[in-house]
Amino acid sequence: MPRIDGDRLLGDLRRIAEFGRYKTGVHRPHLSPQDVESRRWLCDRLREAGLEPMIDGVGTVIGRSPGKGPRLLLGSHSDTQPRGGWLDGVMGVIYALEVARAFREDPGTRDIGIDVASWADEESHFVSLLGSRSFIGTLAEREIDEAKHREDGTPLREALAAAGLADARRARLEEGRYRAYLEAHIEQGGVLEATGKRLGIVTAIVGSHQFRLAFSGQQNHAGTTPMKMRRDAGVAMMRLFNDIQDRFPRHAAERSVWTVGRMSIEPGAPAIVPGRAEMLFQFRDTDPAVLQRMEAALMEIVAEHQQRGPCAVECVNVSRSKPVAMADDLQAVLERAAERHAPGRSMRMPSGAGHDAQILGLRIPAAMLFVPSIGGVSHHYSENTADADIVLGCRVFADAAAEILAAA
Amino acid sequence: MPRIDGDRLLGDLRRIAEFGRYKTGVHRPHLSPQDVESRRWLCDRLREAGLEPMIDGVGTVIGRSPGKGPRLLLGSHSDTQPRGGWLDGVMGVIYALEVARAFREDPGTRDIGIDVASWADEESHFVSLLGSRSFIGTLAEREIDEAKHREDGTPLREALAAAGLADARRARLEEGRYRAYLEAHIEQGGVLEATGKRLGIVTAIVGSHQFRLAFSGQQNHAGTTPMKMRRDAGVAMMRLFNDIQDRFPRHAAERSVWTVGRMSIEPGAPAIVPGRAEMLFQFRDTDPAVLQRMEAALMEIVAEHQQRGPCAVECVNVSRSKPVAMADDLQAVLERAAERHAPGRSMRMPSGAGHDAQILGLRIPAAMLFVPSIGGVSHHYSENTADADIVLGCRVFADAAAEILAAA
Repeated sequence: MPRIDGDRLLGDLRRIAEFGRYKTGVHRPHLSPQDVESRRWLCDRLREAGLEPMIDGVGTVIGRSPGKGPRLLLGSHSDTQPRGGWLDGVMGVIYALEVARAFREDPGTRDIGIDVASWADEESHFVSLLGSRSFIGTLAEREIDEAKHREDGTPLREALAAAGLADARRARLEEGRYRAYLEAHIEQGGVLEATGKRLGIVTAIVGSHQFRLAFSGQQNHAGTTPMKMRRDAGVAMMRLFNDIQDRFPRHAAERSVWTVGRMSIEPGAPAIVPGRAEMLFQFRDTDPAVLQRMEAALMEIVAEHQQRGPCAVECVNVSRSKPVAMADDLQAVLERAAERHAPGRSMRMPSGAGHDAQILGLRIPAAMLFVPSIGGVSHHYSENTADADIVLGCRVFADAAAEILAAA
Repeated sequence: MPRIDGDRLLGDLRRIAEFGRYKTGVHRPHLSPQDVESRRWLCDRLREAGLEPMIDGVGTVIGRSPGKGPRLLLGSHSDTQPRGGWLDGVMGVIYALEVARAFREDPGTRDIGIDVASWADEESHFVSLLGSRSFIGTLAEREIDEAKHREDGTPLREALAAAGLADARRARLEEGRYRAYLEAHIEQGGVLEATGKRLGIVTAIVGSHQFRLAFSGQQNHAGTTPMKMRRDAGVAMMRLFNDIQDRFPRHAAERSVWTVGRMSIEPGAPAIVPGRAEMLFQFRDTDPAVLQRMEAALMEIVAEHQQRGPCAVECVNVSRSKPVAMADDLQAVLERAAERHAPGRSMRMPSGAGHDAQILGLRIPAAMLFVPSIGGVSHHYSENTADADIVLGCRVFADAAAEILAAA
């Protein structure tokens, strides 16, 4: 049985966290200089592990195994949210690297094929799930042409060229190459910790609907415009947001979540009544019917505010992802491996976050393993997981990979 | 009687609007390159008008008259809000220039002293009412040392040095030099237009209290953090803002106004529950007792939210300005001049906006004249005033200046 080297695993995780370190976390958005550097570093590690690495035309790192046997694809993403955590997706990438190394070091599994991927832009700085979507063939060239960085507006093409990837080819899923795709990730929530479990077997990944709401009023002087004559776009946005918070609980399910993660008012000066305001709103659930209900509730609220005035409201859908179920047999394999290493300490659970596995799962059997997040913290530099849980997760992950390949 | 040249007045207004033109308005924040250029241009015009111009150590332009007779100080400000209007304060500056020229051209008033000022940073990019406060002696060197640009954080000292003003002296009000300070400005509201008046005689300038409210919660993943476990700083800000809008009408007076002109949430990514949020809130009235009541209402709301949680609320006072009454005798002079030029078309009214006259008024008799704003629009590039109203206002302004000096 391939043997995971816990110290080597933790050492590599700490090393890659140096690329873009921010306090105890990492700031490494897709194609930032630190992200590009970390991808080159990863390619070197993959080469040392006997794989053939490349950075593809959207920034995904793929390390292909020269082995001829049955093959698995393991991976996750190494880009981060702004000032995010040190583990998040990159833990799954380093798991994949460590498993590939362990298989190669074990004479019994030396010829087995473990390919390793670090998908581009899982965190949506340019295009949500860019790398995995490109890999399975659902990303048009035009989407790449039109994509811009969500914060500074840099065109994706320009960022790719700056990273030296203008002429790199896009890696594509080779039909029949893989038995399955496995991804490990931190939970990013507090359920495992609260229930005393150490491993989560993902049953399904939530679908997420995202909308941009824009409010148009009349920019004016904050001292001379009587309250009754105002069309304050900031007030209009706040009032609508307030209605969402008041009314969504009636339409949502137990595990539904909804969030305004960004809002802005223009021109943003203390003495000016805002003439424009904008917010990004999203909601998630594993049940398509619940997603439908929440969307209908949003449309009803928007229509009411549009009719009531005094500001115009525009509501544009930005994205809709469908809930994706993980493969039943792979869930069973992960559960058996978890039982062998930590009896009674695993549970099945949905993923509230989106993951590349929901994209790969459209084409090949896919499954995911979670390890606990301390305090449930995620997308923040203070995110962390106990070292023992990190190492345990990798052993379970390797064990599951071995069982899948042995059955092939 | 000095004669205002309407075409020359409008021509100079259109010329100075070229510095920082933005659509039909102007973007000319204090000490921006366009602002500095416009100040040099103004100095040239003042010199042509026979005045001795200087740009002082905070950026104020002063043109001093060499005349020995009784003197008036006329002026306003030529800096603008972001993407603001073409008239706003600069109309009053060009009125002052035109009146100085007209007095000089009339043999009967050639030796009369009209000094002209364009005060620095009335629009508060670094320090609210910077120029007039420096001029009357209530601005400490330390305030200049510590001031930073409200948007990009540039230190005021650095911006002054970049404008070549590092060693310029600060102009100071010379005791006994002036009979009065007069300032003309667009109304910036819709009262004159709504009542069919063409001229407003200002009775008092509102006081304004401004607060920064900061909300601290827990940044987290927007997909995996159950609604009940969240401490969402954006929601906390929105809920408090909503209470202000619901409850302030009970505490405010007929003409009170209150505004959130800026708000932000951090980190501002679509898939992250905001951990921090901040908003700037201000309210205004001409009655100190009403200002007190509104401040007490704010403190009560903040205390309730602070106690209720789940986010911490911090409320810091940024500034408090007192309401300032305009000089009664000067109001009467302006009213008589208005009656001579446009019988029955003027009215007395408070100013909802702050003006440099509220600072000058602390040391010398001060008064203000308003002209109508089309549609009541202000602090927006579409702000405008009819040409005929602009010229009429300047004639009334010149006439009032002549009457004050004749009485000296």
